[in-house]
Amino acid sequence: MPLWSIYHSPGVYTAEDKQNFANDVTGIYTGIGLPRFYVVVGFHEVDPESLFIGGESADAAVRIVIDHIARHSAAPEDRRRIGDTISRVVAPYTTDRGLHTEFHVDETPQDLWMINGTWPPPGGSDGEKLWAEKNATVPY
Amino acid sequence: MPLWSIYHSPGVYTAEDKQNFANDVTGIYTGIGLPRFYVVVGFHEVDPESLFIGGESADAAVRIVIDHIARHSAAPEDRRRIGDTISRVVAPYTTDRGLHTEFHVDETPQDLWMINGTWPPPGGSDGEKLWAEKNATVPY
Amino acid sequence: MPLWSIYHSPGVYTAEDKQNFANDVTGIYTGIGLPRFYVVVGFHEVDPESLFIGGESADAAVRIVIDHIARHSAAPEDRRRIGDTISRVVAPYTTDRGLHTEFHVDETPQDLWMINGTWPPPGGSDGEKLWAEKNATVPY
Repeated sequence: MPLWSIYHSPGVYTAEDKQNFANDVTGIYTGIGLPRFYVVVGFHEVDPESLFIGGESADAAVRIVIDHIARHSAAPEDRRRIGDTISRVVAPYTTDRGLHTEFHVDETPQDLWMINGTWPPPGGSDGEKLWAEKNATVPY
Repeated sequence: MPLWSIYHSPGVYTAEDKQNFANDVTGIYTGIGLPRFYVVVGFHEVDPESLFIGGESADAAVRIVIDHIARHSAAPEDRRRIGDTISRVVAPYTTDRGLHTEFHVDETPQDLWMINGTWPPPGGSDGEKLWAEKNATVPY
Repeated sequence: MPLWSIYHSPGVYTAEDKQNFANDVTGIYTGIGLPRFYVVVGFHEVDPESLFIGGESADAAVRIVIDHIARHSAAPEDRRRIGDTISRVVAPYTTDRGLHTEFHVDETPQDLWMINGTWPPPGGSDGEKLWAEKNATVPY
């Protein structure tokens, strides 16, 4: 958690772009105290022959699917802020480049999630702070 | 929204099949007034060595994962109709060809979803009608 | 249902590993009476250049996304047991091999799910038992 799955047209990202994009995404979550290794970002190239937007073959598009597990916000203004933050962070890699861009966030159960065979510590707990500090699934 | 991710065995679809399949899927949603570009369809080939159904390697199968964002129906008869509609539309590309076929729909939050850096207009609003008419994320 | 999507670094699994892994996953669900063919497992290789954990390129990692459809458990102790069971079954293919390992389960609506153009029988029903016995979507 979070898991970012970035489906993109061929040739839109260099290896360096992906590294920078992943770093910026990671910063969204470390900025609110989550352990760095919680953030997983996968890039998946989809050929124009296999990607359609409105029934038209797409060769310059990015479709991002985000799973949020460790944190769920209920307040509308918090959710608005989450979307705006994501939008701002992805812009240099998406809309600013003229790519058709869409993302959505799914929220999945916190109690059906494990890392390295371990139940993650409760959100905001000392255990989570320790995991963030050590950047590893240490005993807590 | 919606996002269709179609995982399929190698060789079951030509480029023309994919185009037609994507068109038919798109029609489900434009038929109820959604902007055409809301509909994203991705095809993902999975080798028999990497796809298992009931523990058996599968070489003639289609597994469809659908994310619905803009519209959630609560009434059981509406949900039944959604499933039946999807089943009917996919049949020519799946069951009618003798492929093992399974789909499921997930419903994700409407308020954590953006396109081209913009919050989509409320479902059924004049803004949405404008987006459908222009088939673009124009100011509303 | 269930759908297991296993994203893994290149070279971590042989074809035989995948077969065994899929068999063991399938056993989790047949053990509680589900039809064998309900269990779909897909392996998806992700290059280090396209997979980042905590912003670092990952070359020895497994990220498993599980969709549960047919069964949802509410009791905390049941959910704990589900996670522990999954963790135990995947260990020989993941943590025991020193791979960075994370999984999460999403729970999606039971009433928006079809197999081979058919609505699956209710969980625990005679129809489901028949499907399990025949290992096929027979009339019920």
